[in-house]
Amino acid sequence: MLTLDKVYHASLVLKEVIRDTDIIYAPKLSKSCEVYLKTENLQITGSFKVRGAYYKISQLTDEEKSRGVIACSAGNHAQGVALAATKAGIRSIICLPDSAPISKVEATKSYGADVCLVQGCYDDAYQRALELQKEKGFTFIHPFNDENVIAGQGTIGLELLNQLPDLDAVIVPVGGGGLISGVAFTIKQLRPKVKVYGVQAKGAASMFNSVKNKKIQCLDSVSTIADGIAVKEPGDKTFDLVNKYVDEIVTVSDDEISSAILTLMEQQKLVAEGAGAVPIAAVMFDKLPIKGKKVACLLSGGNIDVTILSRVIKRGLIMTGRTVQLMIELIDKPGQLKGVADIIARIGGNVISIHHERANEGQDVNGCFLRMVLETKDQAHINEIVTALTDAGYHLC
Amino acid sequence: MLTLDKVYHASLVLKEVIRDTDIIYAPKLSKSCEVYLKTENLQITGSFKVRGAYYKISQLTDEEKSRGVIACSAGNHAQGVALAATKAGIRSIICLPDSAPISKVEATKSYGADVCLVQGCYDDAYQRALELQKEKGFTFIHPFNDENVIAGQGTIGLELLNQLPDLDAVIVPVGGGGLISGVAFTIKQLRPKVKVYGVQAKGAASMFNSVKNKKIQCLDSVSTIADGIAVKEPGDKTFDLVNKYVDEIVTVSDDEISSAILTLMEQQKLVAEGAGAVPIAAVMFDKLPIKGKKVACLLSGGNIDVTILSRVIKRGLIMTGRTVQLMIELIDKPGQLKGVADIIARIGGNVISIHHERANEGQDVNGCFLRMVLETKDQAHINEIVTALTDAGYHLC
Repeated sequence: MLTLDKVYHASLVLKEVIRDTDIIYAPKLSKSCEVYLKTENLQITGSFKVRGAYYKISQLTDEEKSRGVIACSAGNHAQGVALAATKAGIRSIICLPDSAPISKVEATKSYGADVCLVQGCYDDAYQRALELQKEKGFTFIHPFNDENVIAGQGTIGLELLNQLPDLDAVIVPVGGGGLISGVAFTIKQLRPKVKVYGVQAKGAASMFNSVKNKKIQCLDSVSTIADGIAVKEPGDKTFDLVNKYVDEIVTVSDDEISSAILTLMEQQKLVAEGAGAVPIAAVMFDKLPIKGKKVACLLSGGNIDVTILSRVIKRGLIMTGRTVQLMIELIDKPGQLKGVADIIARIGGNVISIHHERANEGQDVNGCFLRMVLETKDQAHINEIVTALTDAGYHLC
Repeated sequence: MLTLDKVYHASLVLKEVIRDTDIIYAPKLSKSCEVYLKTENLQITGSFKVRGAYYKISQLTDEEKSRGVIACSAGNHAQGVALAATKAGIRSIICLPDSAPISKVEATKSYGADVCLVQGCYDDAYQRALELQKEKGFTFIHPFNDENVIAGQGTIGLELLNQLPDLDAVIVPVGGGGLISGVAFTIKQLRPKVKVYGVQAKGAASMFNSVKNKKIQCLDSVSTIADGIAVKEPGDKTFDLVNKYVDEIVTVSDDEISSAILTLMEQQKLVAEGAGAVPIAAVMFDKLPIKGKKVACLLSGGNIDVTILSRVIKRGLIMTGRTVQLMIELIDKPGQLKGVADIIARIGGNVISIHHERANEGQDVNGCFLRMVLETKDQAHINEIVTALTDAGYHLC
């Protein structure tokens, strides 16, 4: 059974390995409320997951430890279990789908785990982990539906109340529900007036749906950039704890999550993964009744693949008018490119790429297209460039 | 005169406004030495500059304060002075070159400064600031060559010695030299055995050259992505302090700085600007005699334009084999594109863009080019794709 004693005990045990992560005020996010960031993205292994994994492993019997542990995860839980097992001096085997990004595979190996790559998706890797557990007798470490894992995550609740004694609310990402179960349980025991809100990705709203329908629901599929919380089905333990202790769960879209990731980078100099950024998305897009309140957003992790980060930035640059693609129809005669280049240079657009195409089908025999990607200052700057080109007689498609 | 008393006093005064920034152990950067990061990129305004600016302003006479302050900067000093003046309840005017990124202009305004955009470069803005100072009687706040500013930056030295009592060395970015002067002075007074190293960008090595030639040197021009330390000429005060207290200065290239920025994002979840990342570049590329030592790297700031960040990531992705551009020569007949697409799909390359070009000059009349940009896992993955295409008879250019 989950008890406050267990959370306090976990907190003591975890002092051996984890960082007591800083809480940072975010002035520019504090427009209608006061926003603080609990920076678990700066935790060792880049996410909070090491807390639950380490506490769980510390509570195994010597016999269980001697058999080694096994886990299945494509992400943070893998790294958490790997590091926790290594620190505890025991063997760990992590099953990963072979589609997992190489960076996560390498990180898991670097923390000392034996990685078992399984052909297929997460579910295939999970099945293989269960098989290996049976065959070889490894101890299975569940990513969320386990009281010791939940107690480990609950230590963040203790830290939050110490760091911000006059806190009004905490906003927590929700996947399988382990993190929010631990944090909500701890906070409601000690300071029941503090609100605990959960945030899920719209494309993986399993806990949200389950709570709404008062029954555990399993999604057929999940699709979100917040891969750390892309869980098809909550656990029975986490479902019960969320029902009992969480005030409200809301959802955010991938576009909202992308904006939150970009905002955290630009304004707070912090790299958050999609799952870690959902509380900020909920604040930025007014999903919760927190006006005038002092709020802690739990940045649960920062393990985002740099390829995804690059796409998020690209999208953010387009949405904020700092990159634009222009398609200009030209008459195919000398001097046309120079004319366009002159105008863009004069107004301070910075050319990233140019593509000049002649003789397209469905176009005048003398026509050609110029496709340019420009770095611009903002939407007004783009409008200025477009107006100048149009005024000079160029036709923009 | 700079005294330790002044630094202690600054530390006391600064408690009103600054964050006591966290020091974070960086295990993956700690291959041959033990690396800690002093996260001034997480300081309010995104850089350490607010320390010197606030302490300087706090020491002005009431009469000087009543006249308001003026500064010239395209970056961190602007934001530091703006916030410091606003917190002190006085007016600030910041002269910026009109080429400054809109994000920096907006940030400076948001901290409460009146922004004066000056046509031209930094030197033009500086001249205009001096004119305005004379005309209107504002008090000029120098970005580095000022004892009170230096004392403010020196408070980081006090914090470092508190946070890491058994520190062996600290690595500090160097532009005009204000930061390293303060930090080196403080540390050498209190713990003379701790080494203080400076790092400059190769494209703006003014202090490096000056120290080497034992005489202040002025560069004709500067060129580096580390705009925060792109300074043509050190000050006389900072030059003297650096000569007296700094153990060694080294330089790093823009490519090395880019790698350091990317590494900080991927491994430490921290956004650093070019200037902030130079100490990490020095560690990664073995520029300093720190083997086996406990070293603090001062991440001085995180105010990097997201456009630059996007370019740094793009370059990093190419350098680490996670993006590749292939140019494939095809015979212009149906089914060729499908053949290529099949191979790439089978090996798990992810297509970002395709450009298919017919009838280029200097090419067979039936030839055409396919230019593809792919997301790949690493260099081995690229090689696998290239080999499979070649084996299938495609000609890669």
